[in-house]
Amino acid sequence: MAPKYGQTTMTSTTLEIRNSQKQQLAPLNLPNRLLLGPGPSNAHPTVLQAMGMNPLGHLDPQFLGVMDEIRSMLRYVWQTENAMTIAVSGTGSAAMEATLANAIHQGETVLIASMGYFGNRLIDMAGRYGAQVKSITKPWGEVFSLAELRSAMETHRPAILALVHAETSTGACQPMDGIGDLCREMGALLILDTVTSMGGVPTHLDDWGVDLAYSCSQKGIGCSPGASPFTMGDRAWTKLQARTTPVENWYLDMNLLSKYWGPERVYHHTAPVNLYYGLREALRLLCEEGVENAWKRHQTNAEYLWQQLESIGLSMHVDKQYRLPTLTTVRVPEGVDAKAVSARMLKEFDLEIGNGLGELAGKVWRVGLMGYNSRRENVDHLIDVFKQVL
Amino acid sequence: MAPKYGQTTMTSTTLEIRNSQKQQLAPLNLPNRLLLGPGPSNAHPTVLQAMGMNPLGHLDPQFLGVMDEIRSMLRYVWQTENAMTIAVSGTGSAAMEATLANAIHQGETVLIASMGYFGNRLIDMAGRYGAQVKSITKPWGEVFSLAELRSAMETHRPAILALVHAETSTGACQPMDGIGDLCREMGALLILDTVTSMGGVPTHLDDWGVDLAYSCSQKGIGCSPGASPFTMGDRAWTKLQARTTPVENWYLDMNLLSKYWGPERVYHHTAPVNLYYGLREALRLLCEEGVENAWKRHQTNAEYLWQQLESIGLSMHVDKQYRLPTLTTVRVPEGVDAKAVSARMLKEFDLEIGNGLGELAGKVWRVGLMGYNSRRENVDHLIDVFKQVL
Repeated sequence: MAPKYGQTTMTSTTLEIRNSQKQQLAPLNLPNRLLLGPGPSNAHPTVLQAMGMNPLGHLDPQFLGVMDEIRSMLRYVWQTENAMTIAVSGTGSAAMEATLANAIHQGETVLIASMGYFGNRLIDMAGRYGAQVKSITKPWGEVFSLAELRSAMETHRPAILALVHAETSTGACQPMDGIGDLCREMGALLILDTVTSMGGVPTHLDDWGVDLAYSCSQKGIGCSPGASPFTMGDRAWTKLQARTTPVENWYLDMNLLSKYWGPERVYHHTAPVNLYYGLREALRLLCEEGVENAWKRHQTNAEYLWQQLESIGLSMHVDKQYRLPTLTTVRVPEGVDAKAVSARMLKEFDLEIGNGLGELAGKVWRVGLMGYNSRRENVDHLIDVFKQVL
Repeated sequence: MAPKYGQTTMTSTTLEIRNSQKQQLAPLNLPNRLLLGPGPSNAHPTVLQAMGMNPLGHLDPQFLGVMDEIRSMLRYVWQTENAMTIAVSGTGSAAMEATLANAIHQGETVLIASMGYFGNRLIDMAGRYGAQVKSITKPWGEVFSLAELRSAMETHRPAILALVHAETSTGACQPMDGIGDLCREMGALLILDTVTSMGGVPTHLDDWGVDLAYSCSQKGIGCSPGASPFTMGDRAWTKLQARTTPVENWYLDMNLLSKYWGPERVYHHTAPVNLYYGLREALRLLCEEGVENAWKRHQTNAEYLWQQLESIGLSMHVDKQYRLPTLTTVRVPEGVDAKAVSARMLKEFDLEIGNGLGELAGKVWRVGLMGYNSRRENVDHLIDVFKQVL
């Protein structure tokens, strides 16, 4: 018997229903895992509770208030006064793309200083927005000296320098002293990836002279992924206003987004309201702790992790001087199957650590102590599991 | 006293902390509202509960299983067998942009048949991807005849025809009979916006000959916004493979996304895992109900709404023949301040309805009965509130 839906009001033919892709599933029932990989990390229970709250409309005055709170707290965590500071309705990669899409004018030179996987991603993305991409690279695990950056800037004279502060693929932290001044001297904008630093590692965007930056919600901030910090300062905003063609990305066009996040409140897209609830709560908890205390907590727990790892005979891939407190690359001992170890940890202990990415695949594990997960007891548990598995 | 974080391991200068943007906030405390606007709609309690579950890693085998379940159930709800069916990690507008970004080759002609605000958005977006955009329009609230579409196709000979099935700004539903055949005859791809139809109005993508389609999670599907259905069939996939330059959008590049959602499981971005939990549960409930029954429920409750609105002297903007069951545009009576009425409903009754958008601003209200909210008691409550407020 043909279904009877809508025959009087829908003008389409009444067609047969195909059930080949229909599923009969039990309610979602997931293991409770400790996520000590490169992210997502576990979110604070308060954050998770907020994500399950009844949604509000994306133009509801109460929701607009939540957006304003988020903007302000993002500025605090990043240490910037940039008016154009928002959360992009996508993951960190969308926020990364937003910085490039809004900063690049077709045909101009963009210099990417890449020290790992996410620097390489910047190279790929920048090319898609019509940039003449130039790049310099470092072995994975090392960082650039200011002299190296200056030399490349003098060679290529780029309109934009983009680099990664905290390289999630290597665990290295790029020193920022002098880079902002260099960019100003050369008349270039500075784009900074703070995906694995924001909230867990000192970020002083204004003092550093950063023009555009992006991050994610699921690492130092301690939320779940999906709503991602984005900021741009006056120099970048002025350049955006000088465009004669629309930004080549509608969803991430800051001209449009600024009218939704700003006082005009012009509808752009339907915000992922429940994610913003979680982000607001995670940022509230970070304000409660004080960002300088959060940075210190990450540093203290990371140093404890390194010491404990060394005590069981493991060593770190990155020099201590440049080592991220949020994400540690641990060398895989000779003869050990890295993926087998992490798979066993996941299966037998409900503990996730990350495998190496790109050049470091098979050579390191990636251990994250980020946001809510940066706690001493998590280090003790991890070490205990490492002892059993190795 | 200067903060002491990281002086031994971070090479950046230790800088003062600025607290000007720091917030001291109470825990999130939001009103419990009934959302009968154009979306988001309220999500089923089971869906909200799932969104607050402990996250898994985006490459965790258990999470990859959730992704597979989502893919299959999206195909069922849309009535398609397209292999490349996924949820995009952004809202419906991102999924809209994904169809254009992956379908348009620079310089080719794209015909947009626009009958409202979201058709106009397609025009804006398509231009950003290098299309020669041609458009035809209808007064807001009307739909295209097949003859009108054929005439425009013969005039412009486009490589792509894009149109909106369920126009959220007008409440009109475009009949789909013959459009797919027309596009095949003319050698064009067919892109269809099903944002306000999927799950609530019959969508037979394969029978209709649709090549690419997109939707959202927060309407007929009954989830919260942020993870958005996308599908492309073989003809569109073949065209994508024939590109000689990368898709001009990294985040939405289906070549990359297919490697994450497919058997290769190559990392692309960190999926918004908690949103996918909610989407999986909403789709599971839809499978449990049966999509044909969900469509019927939307139709039955919409007809009851129309009848009840007429009984209190209100009239509908769209001819009954083309009226969407998910979203109804209600004419604002002469002399009534539309925005004041909806604002009072929100403030005094915790009830959200939508205001008119674009050409229909001030002329209609937009009432949604979508997903979990398509229930008879919601109609009764709305009518009761209308009686008190008007």
